[in-house]
Amino acid sequence: MAVNVPALEALLPIPGVRIGTTNAGIKQRVRDDMVVMVMDADATVAGVFTQSAFRAAPVKIAEARLDQARALVINSGNANAATGQVGEHDASAVCDAVADSLPELKGESVLPFSTGVIGTRLPVAAMQKGALEAVQRLREDNWNAAAWAIMTTDTVPKARSLRIETDKGVVIATGIAKGAGMIKPDMATMLGFMALDAAVPRAILQPLLKRVADRSFNRVTIDGDTSTNDSLILIASGKGPVAVSGDDDPCLAQIEQGLTAIAQDLAMWIARDGEGATRFVTVRVRGGKTSADCLKVAYAIAESPLVKTAIFAGDPNWGRFCMAIGRSGAFVEPDRVNLHLDDVCIARNGLAALGYEEKDAARVMAQQELTVFVDLGFGNIEEWVWTCDFSYDYVKINAEYRS
Amino acid sequence: MAVNVPALEALLPIPGVRIGTTNAGIKQRVRDDMVVMVMDADATVAGVFTQSAFRAAPVKIAEARLDQARALVINSGNANAATGQVGEHDASAVCDAVADSLPELKGESVLPFSTGVIGTRLPVAAMQKGALEAVQRLREDNWNAAAWAIMTTDTVPKARSLRIETDKGVVIATGIAKGAGMIKPDMATMLGFMALDAAVPRAILQPLLKRVADRSFNRVTIDGDTSTNDSLILIASGKGPVAVSGDDDPCLAQIEQGLTAIAQDLAMWIARDGEGATRFVTVRVRGGKTSADCLKVAYAIAESPLVKTAIFAGDPNWGRFCMAIGRSGAFVEPDRVNLHLDDVCIARNGLAALGYEEKDAARVMAQQELTVFVDLGFGNIEEWVWTCDFSYDYVKINAEYRS
Repeated sequence: MAVNVPALEALLPIPGVRIGTTNAGIKQRVRDDMVVMVMDADATVAGVFTQSAFRAAPVKIAEARLDQARALVINSGNANAATGQVGEHDASAVCDAVADSLPELKGESVLPFSTGVIGTRLPVAAMQKGALEAVQRLREDNWNAAAWAIMTTDTVPKARSLRIETDKGVVIATGIAKGAGMIKPDMATMLGFMALDAAVPRAILQPLLKRVADRSFNRVTIDGDTSTNDSLILIASGKGPVAVSGDDDPCLAQIEQGLTAIAQDLAMWIARDGEGATRFVTVRVRGGKTSADCLKVAYAIAESPLVKTAIFAGDPNWGRFCMAIGRSGAFVEPDRVNLHLDDVCIARNGLAALGYEEKDAARVMAQQELTVFVDLGFGNIEEWVWTCDFSYDYVKINAEYRS
Repeated sequence: MAVNVPALEALLPIPGVRIGTTNAGIKQRVRDDMVVMVMDADATVAGVFTQSAFRAAPVKIAEARLDQARALVINSGNANAATGQVGEHDASAVCDAVADSLPELKGESVLPFSTGVIGTRLPVAAMQKGALEAVQRLREDNWNAAAWAIMTTDTVPKARSLRIETDKGVVIATGIAKGAGMIKPDMATMLGFMALDAAVPRAILQPLLKRVADRSFNRVTIDGDTSTNDSLILIASGKGPVAVSGDDDPCLAQIEQGLTAIAQDLAMWIARDGEGATRFVTVRVRGGKTSADCLKVAYAIAESPLVKTAIFAGDPNWGRFCMAIGRSGAFVEPDRVNLHLDDVCIARNGLAALGYEEKDAARVMAQQELTVFVDLGFGNIEEWVWTCDFSYDYVKINAEYRS
């Protein structure tokens, strides 16, 4: 059960971006499992991709084609990873099928995205047929269907639209994402697709997406495992009233703020829907000597199986937090360290805080949502990550997933 | 249940090293929970300690006193960690009690070691009384009692003796260890104590212990979590027939080999007794561009919750291994990577191996012990780590441990 993910609302169409979905039977599913997304000719597209050395075939192709992107073809049920050159050939064949149905496109303008089991070839013929069907269903108001179709073992769809007010007028933006964090490499993890109707030059769009991703999807960790297929795409269709004129255009910051809000919600919902999650946890770390040190401590806490099982049990076992801080690799002086759970100060200067009573921490840890706050005592730099707890169901889901 | 740890045999006494144990009631236990170990004046002592920035009070004191070590005082049930200067004062007071009972010693020659709950003060008065009792029971043949007394939630004691043949005669060596890996920071994790009857100068003993630890205890990972209290001590009593004359003495290598054999058994038994362990796993990685790259891949596999839950389930889900290799941070070219489970080749050049059938891998994964072997394809450098799987009981033990 996802922890407090709101129900899907009607998503706003982005003029100049058409979407079609279909059930290609990739994994004998009842739900649609293929999405085609087509952009008008003047759209710009940016993308960020997994840092894994074992990148799947579609990731390699999508990244190489980013400059000429005009369409995306997305499937769930098969990751097309660890499939080598054959996998690249298969992905290209599916892209070609999309282009064949859309005379204005070349195969090289179609970017593939796959999520599912690793090490198995794509069912190319079925997907070519599916591509044709999806193209026949292209409509601008199909975002909700796409949010469902990209799901794998997600328990809820994750999507959000926003009207972003800027000095030049309103920008419409919509984003969808799938994945229960970096937790499901079989199901090939996190895919995200965002679009807005503003015109944004490619040279501005790519660093914009990188900044947005760094403060959203890159702050989610379930178990430290990173997939072979993670991809995040941002489309600027240019059909709306707003055009970003350059890096110093004030409305760029306004758009960034809006996109970050969407991406942060999607990213948080991924953690809230983490496999077996029963609690949603924000880990905030202030006062490291550097931002990197704050993140090291935050990740060490968020990824520690011992911390995560204690949170699952609602056990305010604060020695485990000290352990994680100590092993993080960050520069730490224990007698400067303060530790809070929400409003409860547990440790001050590395020792149990004066007047601390375990029942106060136990009250916080009984909540479905909590914040772990660490102050390392060297200043005001602050970073955060989002995560969830580690339950019996995490083991159950991952031990039994393929069986 | 520990995976194939042999029953404790009678351990060989080390002349010049006397041991006493007692039940000081530190945690209302039925077993002894305190050990005093006293070395004759001509012994040399080496030690390696946790790299955690959050080091416990006894670790700081023990390391500072290493040069003048004449006695060790060890307790289970309380880690004396996150206790600050008060904790250091408490540990010193217990050391002083040991010295008071042994007129030839000063308090500064006594090294403290603690394992147990973090953040709670030592019961100093009870431990001072316990120190006196343990000193009254000092005997050379008390190693077995010590192996039991240092246990916390270990399900079996871990100890081994060996007669090491050298060019200069036989060296007697005995070691004991506790801990279920870096898995129990509350119980403060790994403590190891080894002794031999050879004479080894301190300047040779310390690097010798470092080399032994690097190829034994430092190769064990249960969940990547490192404790505040990890300590490993090596005593050379000098009472036996063998004296190491210098770095180039051939019997140094013979001793190192024997000590490594003991330490590797102790370390493997720690992984075999990992919390909730149902399988013992050796991860071997060959052909990285550097030794560090081999270890990065080995640890990424051994610490991946997804790999560990798949091993628990006996599911030959090899995509998870690719994922872990890909995210390890090592230099990897997927089309050079081969993957074996024991004798079964699963993937060759990054793809499913020709003729691979899942039932072959399933046979290996049904075993209690297995080896994951990865060849990265860049040569002959090879490294390894030991680990165990990740079961429901891991979550159960860690979620319910303090409750």
